[in-house]
Amino acid sequence: MTLTSRLTGLMGLILLGTTASAFAQVETHHLDNGLEIVVIPDHRAPVVTNMVWYRIGSADEPAGKSGIAHYLEHLMFKGTDEIPEGQFSQIVAANGGQDNAFTSYDYTGYFQRIAADRLPLVMRMEADRMTDLVITEAVWGPERDVILEERRSRVASNPSAILGEQRSAALYLNHPYGTPIIGWEHEMSSLTRQDALDFYTRFYAPNNAILIVAGDVTLDEVVTLAEEYFGPLASSDSISERIRPQEPIAVAARRLVYEDPRVQQPYVIRSYLAQERNAGAQEDAAALTILAELLGGGATSVLNRALVVDAGIAVSAGAFYNGTSLDRTSFGVYAVPAIGTSLQQVEAAMDASLSEFMQTGVDMEHLERIRTQVRASEIFARDSQEGLARAYGSALTSGLTVEDVQNWPADLDAVTAEDVMRVAAEVMDLRQSVTAELRGTSTPEAPQ
Amino acid sequence: MTLTSRLTGLMGLILLGTTASAFAQVETHHLDNGLEIVVIPDHRAPVVTNMVWYRIGSADEPAGKSGIAHYLEHLMFKGTDEIPEGQFSQIVAANGGQDNAFTSYDYTGYFQRIAADRLPLVMRMEADRMTDLVITEAVWGPERDVILEERRSRVASNPSAILGEQRSAALYLNHPYGTPIIGWEHEMSSLTRQDALDFYTRFYAPNNAILIVAGDVTLDEVVTLAEEYFGPLASSDSISERIRPQEPIAVAARRLVYEDPRVQQPYVIRSYLAQERNAGAQEDAAALTILAELLGGGATSVLNRALVVDAGIAVSAGAFYNGTSLDRTSFGVYAVPAIGTSLQQVEAAMDASLSEFMQTGVDMEHLERIRTQVRASEIFARDSQEGLARAYGSALTSGLTVEDVQNWPADLDAVTAEDVMRVAAEVMDLRQSVTAELRGTSTPEAPQ
Repeated sequence: MTLTSRLTGLMGLILLGTTASAFAQVETHHLDNGLEIVVIPDHRAPVVTNMVWYRIGSADEPAGKSGIAHYLEHLMFKGTDEIPEGQFSQIVAANGGQDNAFTSYDYTGYFQRIAADRLPLVMRMEADRMTDLVITEAVWGPERDVILEERRSRVASNPSAILGEQRSAALYLNHPYGTPIIGWEHEMSSLTRQDALDFYTRFYAPNNAILIVAGDVTLDEVVTLAEEYFGPLASSDSISERIRPQEPIAVAARRLVYEDPRVQQPYVIRSYLAQERNAGAQEDAAALTILAELLGGGATSVLNRALVVDAGIAVSAGAFYNGTSLDRTSFGVYAVPAIGTSLQQVEAAMDASLSEFMQTGVDMEHLERIRTQVRASEIFARDSQEGLARAYGSALTSGLTVEDVQNWPADLDAVTAEDVMRVAAEVMDLRQSVTAELRGTSTPEAPQ
Repeated sequence: MTLTSRLTGLMGLILLGTTASAFAQVETHHLDNGLEIVVIPDHRAPVVTNMVWYRIGSADEPAGKSGIAHYLEHLMFKGTDEIPEGQFSQIVAANGGQDNAFTSYDYTGYFQRIAADRLPLVMRMEADRMTDLVITEAVWGPERDVILEERRSRVASNPSAILGEQRSAALYLNHPYGTPIIGWEHEMSSLTRQDALDFYTRFYAPNNAILIVAGDVTLDEVVTLAEEYFGPLASSDSISERIRPQEPIAVAARRLVYEDPRVQQPYVIRSYLAQERNAGAQEDAAALTILAELLGGGATSVLNRALVVDAGIAVSAGAFYNGTSLDRTSFGVYAVPAIGTSLQQVEAAMDASLSEFMQTGVDMEHLERIRTQVRASEIFARDSQEGLARAYGSALTSGLTVEDVQNWPADLDAVTAEDVMRVAAEVMDLRQSVTAELRGTSTPEAPQ
């Protein structure tokens, strides 16, 4: 029951996209009621990961009801007409499995990892709660307290998370990606049982869901079970194309400062509005992925070399980009100043380093090393059953296809130095950016 | 057919609120179908101002449909089942009258100024188009071109207006006041006839409207006519309380820069989120109104004296506030640098001047002069029939009552120096502010 944020903070971790090309053949099927099925065979061990992904996330929430997608995700564990209140996860655990769920801007997902012979059990339970959820008067109030507490512990107690919300709100002038996935506190605190039921009734249906099963199963086995459990569910006619308010043309560079006495380590971070992966057209996103790696991936990256190794004025620096998104996403750079260096100095050095990169271009040896890393990440990806299932789930709920997921490694491999410089010039436009400073109360040269 | 923006730009004009206390007795009535009636007798000349105000504005628009309130306002002039296409204003003009309309965040208003004996005609026409509007296939496309052209001429060709949109978008993280009244161009260009009809059907009804008639009439005459023309209209059950997404607690100071080669005169302007006038509780708004006048009203104001007269580094400086707003509004200050002064210098001087004001407090002689001005503005207000009608209309569509409008002069008069300093300390919190720079390409010290 977690929140998945596109910008995972300062780790400098580039999600190259868990990739599938070397994995066993992925197979797909559709039920008549619209349920999409993806099976990822993995016969190394007699376990399965059973996932149901809904094409609904926080960016699909009604105005003023922020947090409802995540709140409903919590309530989905309460009970149904068949499962007694509070028993969902206990049944899974009693059968040796683990379960959880996650909400993001573009999707909500539920999963169990369990012995392969228990797949019928968990699939039946997922089908049951797709349309027969029960939210009693006894549970909705206390569960709202739980999400409010989750906000306090994840956001209010974390200056970096507070800044993250402010950055998104400032980056998106019109698109709901500017609203936090977990919701604004004042709106969360007035969400009701009826709000959750309205959201559930409108968006939870087989024709708005994807069943992804990875592990020791075959497509035939999964389809047979899915027909039995999901097959009887009626498709909904309240599911329509996901059209959200889009961004106007960006014209004004924005800056913001969040100052908090709890901040030990100040930093400066900039996000630019950026192209996302689009079905059949992932080239720009692939180039942006490589660009982020060149600028910020590891000790030999452009920003690290310039700011940390050579100048010694930053303790870390990096870049980030994740193109798996239904609408425009962001590309970012950041720098964490060394003691005695001000945020202004480290930002100026970061900008100088980026300018130099734009003039000198891509170091071809560096690009080759990145390509090797990408290939390595494909090999590592084979090892994670859940990671692979999530790569498919997030892609398919973000407007991409199975083919897009399978083509992604090749798209990354095909990126040229020219592609990188072209997307770099496009994306690094201050007019479509927010530069944010996280400051402690004693951060050097804090403005008034 | 104009847009009313709360921040009218750089004029430094403080709307003290057109006031009514010295005017003839305002009278009110309600029809059974919910129509509210306000009559402002003014027998100096045989003319009337007939206004219909709807409690619906751009901040009530569905997400993704920005501009629809203003688009509908245009379409309201097209025709009805009784009035042939394009004849509305021509009929008014043929009877010696003038008509127009305006759209703001919180209201949409229509009015005619005409000889008193033609009041039945224009009231009948307003009642007619309240529920019997006809939008033919022939008119909606061309009229959409008109509003797009209006956007081009009012916003796209005006760097200050472009900056204004960006400032609002950055000030409001969650509330729809962050969306331009005229709409974002990409959303305006996809508005349809059906969007306009949906908005019209949902929001135009007698129980969502206020009829305001000022001029040479009595309440009895107006009620008799209103019963005849508006009385037969059914009230709508799709009208509910206006609840918009509200702002989260502000935590991070924001800045933005808009650079445009057309800018001749750069400036720096800061908006803070601020209390609005609330029914029965206008004290803080009254104090903010006086504060704006103290800081920025005329040549003897704090900012003018410090930046223009004493230091000679600004060509003008001022403050602005308009508390007539359904939800949180803004309080602002600005400075326009003299030649040779950078925006950084003039902003630093502005901040120094504000800091000094916070320490030294209100000059009591200055406060007394402001009070005299307020009283004078009451007297001037008696002369403007239309201005007075608009003061009532904007107040009543922003959650205020006739009593609030009538109490406003006394509320302003009761503001003490302590009140001013209290609201000044509350409102001038950088965390709830946006500081914006308008720059030409040759503005001194432009950042990269």
